Amino acid sequence: MECIPECRPELVIDLYQLTMAASYFEQKMSAPATFSLFIRAYPPNRNFFIAAGLEELLVFLENFRYQKGDLEYLDTLGLFKPDFLDFLGSLKFTGQVRAMPEGTIFFKDEPILEVTAPIIEAQLVETLVINMINVSTMIATKAARCVNAAQGRRLVDFALRRTQGIDAGLKVARSSYLAGFIGTSNVLAGKIYNIPVFGTMAHSYITSFPSEIEAFRAFAKAFPRNAVLLIDTFDPIAGTRHAIKVARELEEQGYQLRGVRLDSGDLVDLSIRVRELLDENGLKDVQIFASGGFDEFKIDDVLSRGAKIDAFGVGTKMGVSADAPYFDMAYKLVQYDGRPVMKLSTGKVTYVGAKQVFRFFDDDGFIDHDTIGLKSENHPPAHTLLQTFMVSGKRVRDPENLETIKMRVEKEFMKLPPQCKTLDAEKKVRVEISEELEKLQQEVKQQIIEKELGEG
Amino acid sequence: MECIPECRPELVIDLYQLTMAASYFEQKMSAPATFSLFIRAYPPNRNFFIAAGLEELLVFLENFRYQKGDLEYLDTLGLFKPDFLDFLGSLKFTGQVRAMPEGTIFFKDEPILEVTAPIIEAQLVETLVINMINVSTMIATKAARCVNAAQGRRLVDFALRRTQGIDAGLKVARSSYLAGFIGTSNVLAGKIYNIPVFGTMAHSYITSFPSEIEAFRAFAKAFPRNAVLLIDTFDPIAGTRHAIKVARELEEQGYQLRGVRLDSGDLVDLSIRVRELLDENGLKDVQIFASGGFDEFKIDDVLSRGAKIDAFGVGTKMGVSADAPYFDMAYKLVQYDGRPVMKLSTGKVTYVGAKQVFRFFDDDGFIDHDTIGLKSENHPPAHTLLQTFMVSGKRVRDPENLETIKMRVEKEFMKLPPQCKTLDAEKKVRVEISEELEKLQQEVKQQIIEKELGEG
Repeated sequence: MECIPECRPELVIDLYQLTMAASYFEQKMSAPATFSLFIRAYPPNRNFFIAAGLEELLVFLENFRYQKGDLEYLDTLGLFKPDFLDFLGSLKFTGQVRAMPEGTIFFKDEPILEVTAPIIEAQLVETLVINMINVSTMIATKAARCVNAAQGRRLVDFALRRTQGIDAGLKVARSSYLAGFIGTSNVLAGKIYNIPVFGTMAHSYITSFPSEIEAFRAFAKAFPRNAVLLIDTFDPIAGTRHAIKVARELEEQGYQLRGVRLDSGDLVDLSIRVRELLDENGLKDVQIFASGGFDEFKIDDVLSRGAKIDAFGVGTKMGVSADAPYFDMAYKLVQYDGRPVMKLSTGKVTYVGAKQVFRFFDDDGFIDHDTIGLKSENHPPAHTLLQTFMVSGKRVRDPENLETIKMRVEKEFMKLPPQCKTLDAEKKVRVEISEELEKLQQEVKQQIIEKELGEG
Repeated sequence: MECIPECRPELVIDLYQLTMAASYFEQKMSAPATFSLFIRAYPPNRNFFIAAGLEELLVFLENFRYQKGDLEYLDTLGLFKPDFLDFLGSLKFTGQVRAMPEGTIFFKDEPILEVTAPIIEAQLVETLVINMINVSTMIATKAARCVNAAQGRRLVDFALRRTQGIDAGLKVARSSYLAGFIGTSNVLAGKIYNIPVFGTMAHSYITSFPSEIEAFRAFAKAFPRNAVLLIDTFDPIAGTRHAIKVARELEEQGYQLRGVRLDSGDLVDLSIRVRELLDENGLKDVQIFASGGFDEFKIDDVLSRGAKIDAFGVGTKMGVSADAPYFDMAYKLVQYDGRPVMKLSTGKVTYVGAKQVFRFFDDDGFIDHDTIGLKSENHPPAHTLLQTFMVSGKRVRDPENLETIKMRVEKEFMKLPPQCKTLDAEKKVRVEISEELEKLQQEVKQQIIEKELGEG
């Protein structure tokens, strides 16, 4: 059984990267290539994205090395010549990485990361780059929408059991935390990323005891300071009465019941009735925690209908970004050996050349528009979004801690125009192409048409 | 940087499993508990599931051990007493696992796996069990639908770049292979699972050369026996003419061009025109490979409209199960210390007791219906679907190799009634509840209502 691969990036690859690399090697093509990473289209209900996943990618790029076992496996495929495999054995990633810092808000077509490296290296990391940035960005974006919908109520990531694998579970915990969640149920994520962990009990706990109140009492005994009692195993109102009884018993011992949790049924009606019951019994400080199928739409729905919920456990639908379970993210060659390049395939535009994203703000500090231009351009007073993170394969900035990124998301989100924050994402921020980029784009396109379609 | 966790299952856990375990420990509750794993509802367009993920889960259960660093981390949470942490330090999984073999077709509500173990052990593995079986089963099911739609044409997994993480990418490669794909682009999966790997070139390869035909020539030189040329970087018809030229050049050297690939545009019209061009030039054996947004619906659509495609690269939409990116899979306590248990939460039924699934066939060998009954029942001549895989924490069967599972899927799929194979999944196989189970279910429900709701 292999241990997978946070630390073994070099085989996280589609075979064609290796076949292309073998041909580049044979052709002695080693000039620098620049690849741009960008999202081609907004999925439904999206009008912004939150960049995430860069930190982990940089660690992987620094550790990119083929191991002996990898090369032995590749040799068995019968595709690769010994000199190419020897070359792979000594390969490191020596390139440059420019990227938006994690937590930056960005829009479709904008390069969020550019790699410039000898073409074999830049090509070999394609799958890794897309995979790592895509899933974290997708979840950070989804989670930020949930935070927005919750209007200040606390959110906890409950997704691990139904994330698409364990690696995804870790990325969901990290990305939702940086997007504004207060923590996760995921213990491994808590350990690895130092994220606060939360959790109390499942229905199975209740049903394993002879009765609900005995289960509540046992739990309050074990965790007198932290008890959140799940009250809907049999009947949520009867459950509330049991919780009130246990709250009284805790009070006699000098403790306070922390909360109750609802996980099913009509959470608007139930939360109102449970709140009333708790308040009538002098338990105004006991919080109501809700879980069960929440995402930004359901949070918005129950709150708009008056639900009395203090915090939400947000699980599966956030953890797989259920309404948009993939982004159309692409990593495309835009320049080779100083020559800007593009493909013409139907309906898929790639902007040529190494680029920069210039952000303009209005007088109130909201984002007015972005301009995608060439890296060499200047557009004062615009902010430039792509920054240099790696030079010659070495990181040139200290890793950011999660709290820094979390604060950036909060600040960035405040700069998003209010009309761009509705859940249906109707209003989009304007993204322009600079005159210089547009001119170069047309020139390259014209050259290709003359050369490739003229000789057909 | 941590190495994640194929081999570190013990922290793949929601915190509440540990808080519940701490309370069970304090209460000296160590009797055997049985948990059932099942899917509560069909997602849109699904009427069957293909069991997958068991092999990896069994490996994890055998290796379930808290490490010193795990216990130190848990200690920092301030929730757990030293005697409980000591207990965790010496914990192994000593339970029984009964399950459907990988590749078995099953239906909603049916237990696909049951764990019986001392309650702490059975509870602690909840997240791991759901996470591992859910994603593999979801992808095997999606991939089987693609295989069905392809009517014998070959399918290759191209999903890795946009799977939800690297772990997911591996599970997608394995699950799609066992469901009938012929291989994957995922090199790491090829190495770990010994799955055939496929792949040739990307658009970036073409654009890095001064012209398309120079790129084709270089690739044919490197891989004269295996060249599949991507023909749509600039214009697919011009690209086909270039490929024909290179095919001629290969013929002069005694080789044959293997194929061409289309990745965009109207693939029905294009594949027909490309096929004609190839045939007119005596290249009837050159295959047309298509990729770009394929899933079972798009495969079915292009084939029904006459596309001339020999093989498909099936990527993102299969790899995230885009139209059903999660299954409502649950792991519920059904028996504790010999006492059948259930919850009553609105709209969520759990069948009590340790169970068996009995499958009945019609005279033509098709599945007629299934009956969910108690483990102790007998219903000859029905086949029983749950088999014992682990006793006292040890595996009692040899691991199955992927080819065996692949053959099982093929056989199982032949037994699915033809009217249950349409992509809209309109017709469902009938699943009954046995009289004994129904009687016990009602008894337990009545007891709970009397005990829990009578005292409210």
